[in-house]
Amino acid sequence: MSFESYKGKKVLITGGLGFIGSSLALRLVGLGARVTVIDSLIPQYGGNLFNVEPVKDLLRVNISDVRDRSSINYLVQGQDFLFNLAGTLSHIDSMRDPFTDLEINCVSQLRILEACRENNPGVKIVFAGTRGQFGRATYLPVDEEHPLRPTDVNGINNIAGEQYHLLYSEVYGIRACSLRLTNTYGPRHQMRHARQGVLNWFVRQVIEGEKIRIYGDGSQIRDTNYIEDVVEALLLAMITPETDGQVYNLGGEPLSLVNFVEQLITLNGSGAYELVAYPQDLKPIEIGDYIASHDKFSRCTGWHPRVPLVDGLQCTLDYYRKNRHEYW
Amino acid sequence: MSFESYKGKKVLITGGLGFIGSSLALRLVGLGARVTVIDSLIPQYGGNLFNVEPVKDLLRVNISDVRDRSSINYLVQGQDFLFNLAGTLSHIDSMRDPFTDLEINCVSQLRILEACRENNPGVKIVFAGTRGQFGRATYLPVDEEHPLRPTDVNGINNIAGEQYHLLYSEVYGIRACSLRLTNTYGPRHQMRHARQGVLNWFVRQVIEGEKIRIYGDGSQIRDTNYIEDVVEALLLAMITPETDGQVYNLGGEPLSLVNFVEQLITLNGSGAYELVAYPQDLKPIEIGDYIASHDKFSRCTGWHPRVPLVDGLQCTLDYYRKNRHEYW
Repeated sequence: MSFESYKGKKVLITGGLGFIGSSLALRLVGLGARVTVIDSLIPQYGGNLFNVEPVKDLLRVNISDVRDRSSINYLVQGQDFLFNLAGTLSHIDSMRDPFTDLEINCVSQLRILEACRENNPGVKIVFAGTRGQFGRATYLPVDEEHPLRPTDVNGINNIAGEQYHLLYSEVYGIRACSLRLTNTYGPRHQMRHARQGVLNWFVRQVIEGEKIRIYGDGSQIRDTNYIEDVVEALLLAMITPETDGQVYNLGGEPLSLVNFVEQLITLNGSGAYELVAYPQDLKPIEIGDYIASHDKFSRCTGWHPRVPLVDGLQCTLDYYRKNRHEYW
Repeated sequence: MSFESYKGKKVLITGGLGFIGSSLALRLVGLGARVTVIDSLIPQYGGNLFNVEPVKDLLRVNISDVRDRSSINYLVQGQDFLFNLAGTLSHIDSMRDPFTDLEINCVSQLRILEACRENNPGVKIVFAGTRGQFGRATYLPVDEEHPLRPTDVNGINNIAGEQYHLLYSEVYGIRACSLRLTNTYGPRHQMRHARQGVLNWFVRQVIEGEKIRIYGDGSQIRDTNYIEDVVEALLLAMITPETDGQVYNLGGEPLSLVNFVEQLITLNGSGAYELVAYPQDLKPIEIGDYIASHDKFSRCTGWHPRVPLVDGLQCTLDYYRKNRHEYW
């Protein structure tokens, strides 16, 4: 499918200074879209102005929180497309402060949809869900029919956020779909803590020359996607009419954490890892192996992950070696 | 199973002046429990002090809203059992005012669980879910594995409320289970509007001598339960240890709305009904036929619905004829 149709279109990205949002923004600017990114720039959450530095004169940056009703009401107006990516992703944070997680991932999603219903019912929305909505896999690979039984508050709130989108699509005709993302890695992810995913954290540790710490025996399987493949999926989801009202799992290369780390160390030319026991507060929310089936999405859009792990890791290492001072 | 074990136990019921909560409170007082009911008495919501009039000196009534954090924090302390029944049930109201629905059915549920975690982690909780969590049935009867795809905001928020209970059970060991209630009818239901269920509304219309109005062709199947059977189910769920961390569908007598109304008219000795088209704002949230499977709950607790429709309807008619001035 051609991305020509993005040319000249007005596109709003919530969470647009974060890892995925900013990577998407860069690509959209390249496609000739008129991009506005919204980001709260809450410390620790992943937003970083440097992420859009290469295109800073070619898009509009609006600092505001998705919990800020008036700014959202205003900003959705006139947009052709809304990539709704704002949201917390931290399992641990959601257990320590469940109400903040609820406000951002659940209440604010309903606000955004109400804002669209009142001010821009013709918009199309792509919502970013998460594999955390599933909890422990009862079978593999996990398809869209798999039961949703989250092991943390974040997963529960993301289910509600996703379901509001489907409901508003069905009842009010606001076109929306959800892509449930898995473990994404690559340039522009925050590198200050490991609470939004371990893959990039391993990259930091290897660059620092630290011994990488893997919880458990390291054999747990994660389904990994390089950021550019995720951006491609988001772009396809938006312009494929058949996605309206649908949910899709994304997935890519399933591999064990040890396998990921070993390839990382090889590419880096040096490094080491150790296996350590799970901290007590993480044990109940560890989900075991996770492999997604992306067949439904591939059938619908033709998407397939294209970037091999070694290439993705190499680009990631290169990016952070060069821009370390912006992320550490 | 014997209900002897309720004797002397401290029991808290949220929504305890409502239809189901008050019926449960009356039964628990009879079993010798020390009952506290919490209710906000928000007009239109179903709470009615008259509901507990027969036992008013034998229980404690505390008027407060589940959104009121301090009162909940205090009241959960020292309770053996918590029947968590507070919640809005109106599909229409949840679409007209989705944020109030969210606060009560989602945010407040998390608050109640946090209150228990901090102040009374040894409590056991029974949460009242709803068939609305399923949306349209893709197969019948609907068992617990059936996908959850609500057709209104209320169903989405109830899913989140239920999932918080399961999560707190699993992660923090706070014993909790959920019973997803279907269409319950009987004495003590509010009779001022039809937005919390049509069955009792039909009873009002027949008593008033009004022509009963059924939307659609009247052939839509509803799974009905008489209130006393639901009370029995709640009592069993609480004292059966195997229910911890589980969800169950309740169900009873599946029958068409026309069939329900015809039996009602026969018992009343007079009456008539007419079929009218669905109002525009109700069409998208109409769910078609619904029949639940209560096999899982029956296997676990031995519960079976016992009250035949004619007996339930007769008691309901008698109650409202006698107490009409308290409900109209």
